[in-house]
Amino acid sequence: MTRLMEELAKLPGIGQKTAERLAYHVLRAPSEEAMRLADAIRDVKTNVKSCSVCFNLAEADPCGICQDVRRDRSVICVVEQPRDLIALEKAGQFNGLYHILLGRIAPLEGMDPEHLTIGKLVERVKRDAVKEVILATNPNQEGDATALFIAKALSGSAVKVTRIARGVPAGSYLEYASAPILADAITGRREM
Amino acid sequence: MTRLMEELAKLPGIGQKTAERLAYHVLRAPSEEAMRLADAIRDVKTNVKSCSVCFNLAEADPCGICQDVRRDRSVICVVEQPRDLIALEKAGQFNGLYHILLGRIAPLEGMDPEHLTIGKLVERVKRDAVKEVILATNPNQEGDATALFIAKALSGSAVKVTRIARGVPAGSYLEYASAPILADAITGRREM
Repeated sequence: MTRLMEELAKLPGIGQKTAERLAYHVLRAPSEEAMRLADAIRDVKTNVKSCSVCFNLAEADPCGICQDVRRDRSVICVVEQPRDLIALEKAGQFNGLYHILLGRIAPLEGMDPEHLTIGKLVERVKRDAVKEVILATNPNQEGDATALFIAKALSGSAVKVTRIARGVPAGSYLEYASAPILADAITGRREM
Repeated sequence: MTRLMEELAKLPGIGQKTAERLAYHVLRAPSEEAMRLADAIRDVKTNVKSCSVCFNLAEADPCGICQDVRRDRSVICVVEQPRDLIALEKAGQFNGLYHILLGRIAPLEGMDPEHLTIGKLVERVKRDAVKEVILATNPNQEGDATALFIAKALSGSAVKVTRIARGVPAGSYLEYASAPILADAITGRREM
């Protein structure tokens, strides 16, 4: 039990108390349920691979995108999760490479910069001939804080650091937009 | 009846056939209902005034915003309807003057440029010392077409013409954003 509690407490955002509570839940739970959890953890680690370059979920390493010679290797788009990469690929506007952070900075949930792949991104930018890093973390408080942290981490290198555009969403109506959205739209206006 | 049909057919998007149908509806409708419509039309024209400068709904002419000496008179924000002005005022990011188009260009609905207040805007820009016109029509097809039309109409003058920023809305998540929104976000990215 002590070993299980210790292992659980290593997860981000899980403290001593929560680890204890979870461990007791496992103890009380039907054996099959606990085994399914154990198997699921093992399966993820054995079957789903993470690309060692960009940290995208992949069957091959490096992943299909990192291996694709038709993609522009001088631009890296940084996203929080693999799901964001999928959404951006569907949009079809980006033809560079990606870097998956595997989360965002959220101190209250125990997600600190060292839990993310920021160090590996800085290495990548230094090692490869990267000209631009597009920070495509979510346009909310945690995503903005994460973007700012990465911009600072990259400030030592010559790479151009950009942030995705925020403003009124395509296809929407101004009258239904919230104040922060409209403030972004006015602040970020561009010459036609 | 012919006079009613003629008057109805002058409304934007109402053709001869529709005017006929509406006129017959008025004929069949209970007298009170028809009178309420007539009174409502009369009331709007007598009680609700439109600002002769910006076309905002107002009790005074010029309206409160056009008269406010604390506002920056060198910037005009162009919106489709009074409701958009209200939304932007709530956002609190803009301190210039407005110009209400009273609609947008929508040929299929019979809304042509001459139904809007574009001519008056061009006059205003020429007459007053306007430095910038922000086109804040909706970020959809009709709003974009309207913005483009106005930009062309103003291309003769020295005024700077800008468009509100479009991209991912503040507080949202990339994974749920549509392809056009994400395409805007990538295309419009800015240096940090």
